[in-house]
Amino acid sequence: MKKLSELGERRAIQEILEILSTKNTAVDAGDDCAAFELDKEYLLVTTDMISQRTHIPKQMSAFQIGWFVVAINLSDIAAKGGTPLGLVLAFGLPKEKSETFLKNLTKGADACATQFNTAIIGGDTKESKEITICGTALGLVKKDEFMPRKGAKPGDIVAVTGKLGKAGAGYYALKHKIWDQSILKGLMEPLPRLKEGRILAKEKIVTSCMDISDGLSSSLYQLQELNNVGFEINQKEIPICLELKQLQKEKKGIDVYNYALHFGGDYELLFTVPYDSFDIVSKSMEKTNTALTAIGRVTKKKNIVIIAENKEEILRNKGYEHFKRRTFL
Amino acid sequence: MKKLSELGERRAIQEILEILSTKNTAVDAGDDCAAFELDKEYLLVTTDMISQRTHIPKQMSAFQIGWFVVAINLSDIAAKGGTPLGLVLAFGLPKEKSETFLKNLTKGADACATQFNTAIIGGDTKESKEITICGTALGLVKKDEFMPRKGAKPGDIVAVTGKLGKAGAGYYALKHKIWDQSILKGLMEPLPRLKEGRILAKEKIVTSCMDISDGLSSSLYQLQELNNVGFEINQKEIPICLELKQLQKEKKGIDVYNYALHFGGDYELLFTVPYDSFDIVSKSMEKTNTALTAIGRVTKKKNIVIIAENKEEILRNKGYEHFKRRTFL
Repeated sequence: MKKLSELGERRAIQEILEILSTKNTAVDAGDDCAAFELDKEYLLVTTDMISQRTHIPKQMSAFQIGWFVVAINLSDIAAKGGTPLGLVLAFGLPKEKSETFLKNLTKGADACATQFNTAIIGGDTKESKEITICGTALGLVKKDEFMPRKGAKPGDIVAVTGKLGKAGAGYYALKHKIWDQSILKGLMEPLPRLKEGRILAKEKIVTSCMDISDGLSSSLYQLQELNNVGFEINQKEIPICLELKQLQKEKKGIDVYNYALHFGGDYELLFTVPYDSFDIVSKSMEKTNTALTAIGRVTKKKNIVIIAENKEEILRNKGYEHFKRRTFL
Repeated sequence: MKKLSELGERRAIQEILEILSTKNTAVDAGDDCAAFELDKEYLLVTTDMISQRTHIPKQMSAFQIGWFVVAINLSDIAAKGGTPLGLVLAFGLPKEKSETFLKNLTKGADACATQFNTAIIGGDTKESKEITICGTALGLVKKDEFMPRKGAKPGDIVAVTGKLGKAGAGYYALKHKIWDQSILKGLMEPLPRLKEGRILAKEKIVTSCMDISDGLSSSLYQLQELNNVGFEINQKEIPICLELKQLQKEKKGIDVYNYALHFGGDYELLFTVPYDSFDIVSKSMEKTNTALTAIGRVTKKKNIVIIAENKEEILRNKGYEHFKRRTFL
């Protein structure tokens, strides 16, 4: 009898999908976000659970835990081009936890929701052995602005929002006891790309989109499988965040591309657009402070190649997967 | 610094509500179900988390756990008179759990959703220390059919659907190792009263409604506080389920009213209607196999009195509350 640790999260999801009676039609099975058809819009629904051992390093404050669970749920709304309607949160907490912990947890969740123009509109509190928090975010998106995961075509540009490796830098700092809050924030207080998602969606030219919460390499492999295409990625184009660069300067041994490619926890958007349209989204994005960077192309050949220092290699697929790998410290 | 065990679930919820920036307007704060205004309808959203120690006796099968989490979420939609749109589920599972466990868990969730004409439309799987499952159900209800918690008026009839004490009987059987599946089912495979909720809602005369998942006494106290009224309950009118009666016959010591009044886990609906309207809902309910029973009246006097064998007493408030009380076996 196979254990979940042998199965891994993605195979587990496949098995779940095979059992469920009704497949969701608006989005691809296995998408992080489900969608219901309303009149001219999709109602987006996404749920994400975090628990102490796998997501919550002990240095994370109650405020940050609350922020985090809201941010990661909003990120799935962002990846569809949606506008959030609100969230419900279920708090599973050990009874030994303090009232102050609960208050700060709530303040963090509320702060993140408020910063992104939405609200916590309901929830549940339960006793549990370890801190386990489940968020569900609802959003709306016009049908013709909805960004699917499936739709990438050979020739399309592959691009990302923002700079990568912030979560990786935070993790490195944590592991090496570098208590620099601005670096740690990248891991513990991610920013969902809602504004950026809306800007991309409004142009109606994005062919596929997802967030890179599982890591860039893992996300590319998920898109590759779903779209039955390949990717050619130029490593030197991958936008590395300042925090990783700073750590690289101070500590010689860091391979920044390893963190930017394979470490989960960045909540940037990965998307594809037709070659001729990249300039359009790039120009629209100028009104924000967020960079858009083309990092490669969609190819007919169904593999993922990374070009680094004029050498082509097959990209390793080693992002985070539940039941299988890393737990925090 | 106060611990959650001293605070209790209901006070914890109050503290959360005091912190949150935006209060939900369509339903009362602290309601188990949130609501968004769409055009002519409310979009209902409810979330419920269960975890091993507090909700899942070790005799509960994976199928039953899946069923349970779907049923309890649908119950909150039922209490508002809603029709379910679908559910998302987040599974937090220890990595030592088997593939078979995951499959049966999914089958149970799917079976309950299917039986009640809805579907699991998305979710999340995560590794966690103990089994923790969070469900979120969405539903729709026409604005003029929405059943609030607040609205009970002195003189109204207080009534319940079905027979009470099924979960209590199941718990008793579990504790005393009586492996009678039909009794255990009352605890482990509750049935959400969706059809009954719709029938009540369509008449547009229900003044307040909630499910009695926390126990009848606890639910009465919640309604009493919210509505600023009192209740007079006739103990002999409380409809006791067959399972409790059977246990009472076999084991002399059982106080069936104690189970029916104070034990949580029954998912019947508790509601109030104007005195003259009880016959209307009672007649509408005849097309189902579900009994409707008037158990008392709403009073001006703000306490809850129970009349048993011609004696009036103040009803004890001792339903289930998280962080404070009972864990399973």
